[in-house]
Amino acid sequence: MSDYDSVSADVEHEEEIPEDHPRYQDLLTRHRIEAGVEKGITHLQGMHAEGRGSAFDYLLGEETIPSADDAERAAAAHLLLAEHPVLSINGNVAALVPGEMVALAEAVDADLEVNLFNRTPERIDAIADHLREHGAGDVKGLEADARIPNLEHKRAKVDADGIYDADVVLVPLEDGDRAEALDEMGKTEIVIDLNPLSRSPQVADVPIVDNIIRAVPNMTEHARALADSDEAELEAIIEDFDRERALENAEERIRSGDL
Amino acid sequence: MSDYDSVSADVEHEEEIPEDHPRYQDLLTRHRIEAGVEKGITHLQGMHAEGRGSAFDYLLGEETIPSADDAERAAAAHLLLAEHPVLSINGNVAALVPGEMVALAEAVDADLEVNLFNRTPERIDAIADHLREHGAGDVKGLEADARIPNLEHKRAKVDADGIYDADVVLVPLEDGDRAEALDEMGKTEIVIDLNPLSRSPQVADVPIVDNIIRAVPNMTEHARALADSDEAELEAIIEDFDRERALENAEERIRSGDL
Repeated sequence: MSDYDSVSADVEHEEEIPEDHPRYQDLLTRHRIEAGVEKGITHLQGMHAEGRGSAFDYLLGEETIPSADDAERAAAAHLLLAEHPVLSINGNVAALVPGEMVALAEAVDADLEVNLFNRTPERIDAIADHLREHGAGDVKGLEADARIPNLEHKRAKVDADGIYDADVVLVPLEDGDRAEALDEMGKTEIVIDLNPLSRSPQVADVPIVDNIIRAVPNMTEHARALADSDEAELEAIIEDFDRERALENAEERIRSGDL
Repeated sequence: MSDYDSVSADVEHEEEIPEDHPRYQDLLTRHRIEAGVEKGITHLQGMHAEGRGSAFDYLLGEETIPSADDAERAAAAHLLLAEHPVLSINGNVAALVPGEMVALAEAVDADLEVNLFNRTPERIDAIADHLREHGAGDVKGLEADARIPNLEHKRAKVDADGIYDADVVLVPLEDGDRAEALDEMGKTEIVIDLNPLSRSPQVADVPIVDNIIRAVPNMTEHARALADSDEAELEAIIEDFDRERALENAEERIRSGDL
């Protein structure tokens, strides 16, 4: 790929990226991931994953398509109705939307839990610190005193009073094996992923095919708008959401969008 | 994106990646780029660019489509007919296909020239060393005593007796501005890029929409097969190649391929 470097990679602070640049979101995303790698928050592989996602976002038109907005609203309703909602944070999520995840957690009264594919104590601590710098109070995932069944030991680690106990989990940019194992635990699973045919959105109750930097603030906005809704209204929103149609719409958009 | 981490990122040597793995090429590519970053050959942004390319390769079916094979044969013919062919090497090219570029240079009697978007003396030296470890003799790009016109100073640097003097250049994974400036110099330009609508393949005389790890060995194979062809045969191959059709075929394949 060539067009990655048609703008300088030497931006030190994201404020230097002009907001009216036609590739603003892509540049911002890339800058944040790169800063994440440099801070020890994001695994080098996360840079590759983000690049992969950026190609799908380009094909989607780099906007929240209507079916993704529906999914984000349904996700907000699930989180508001949950007894114990947990938002899972990996290295890419922490780099891309730390403050946005903290704001969503506040809007729906959810826990934040750090969960890494390439788990090291240094990265866990760096991410927890990074989240606290962005306003997080309690950050789970440091205990890791429970295990997700049917998953390789290292990747199965979760907090007993966190993801293990949750009824609704948001797992953005999640590995397919882990998404499947969480699904098998009977949890209501919300996934954000830019490839609608990845395994993670395929097993999710609410697959959100959107860029995380657009999806999370939009979920928060929906959650705030729905804050005073009663249970029946929230359940009607969930009932109305059609996961198959959302996946189909995203695929259709990728195939027919401006290449 | 999630499926990036459905295989361990902890492979130390590429021999550990099983060749019969359904995602072998993608894993190999990712491993080589990561090793390139760790060796100081590849810029961190190159990891993002490679991820972006991998999504397009996935949509292409991760194979050399017939129009790409045609393009690779036409490219080999151009290089064989050239008076002074030069193969340009950046950080991703060096990480992904160092030995393969050396083999192609030998097959068509071309110069190898290091050319970086994020140019530092350390990276230039690391890449030149890396190429020599893979069998390269003379490596150009260290002098950088000429300039490509109409391009920002730092990115315009080339060798006077290298790219500046070349009649045919292979610029794989090239930045759009640079590809345009080289085109304006009247050079016959061969570009390898997985997005057919990127600017670089759009301005190329021979746009190759293929993964570089398949494209370069295939060009070498074509060059060897054509080694004894006379000028008229080589010119007929070039004449037969239709760049517009090649770009259209690639786009068509991406749109209709298995997502």
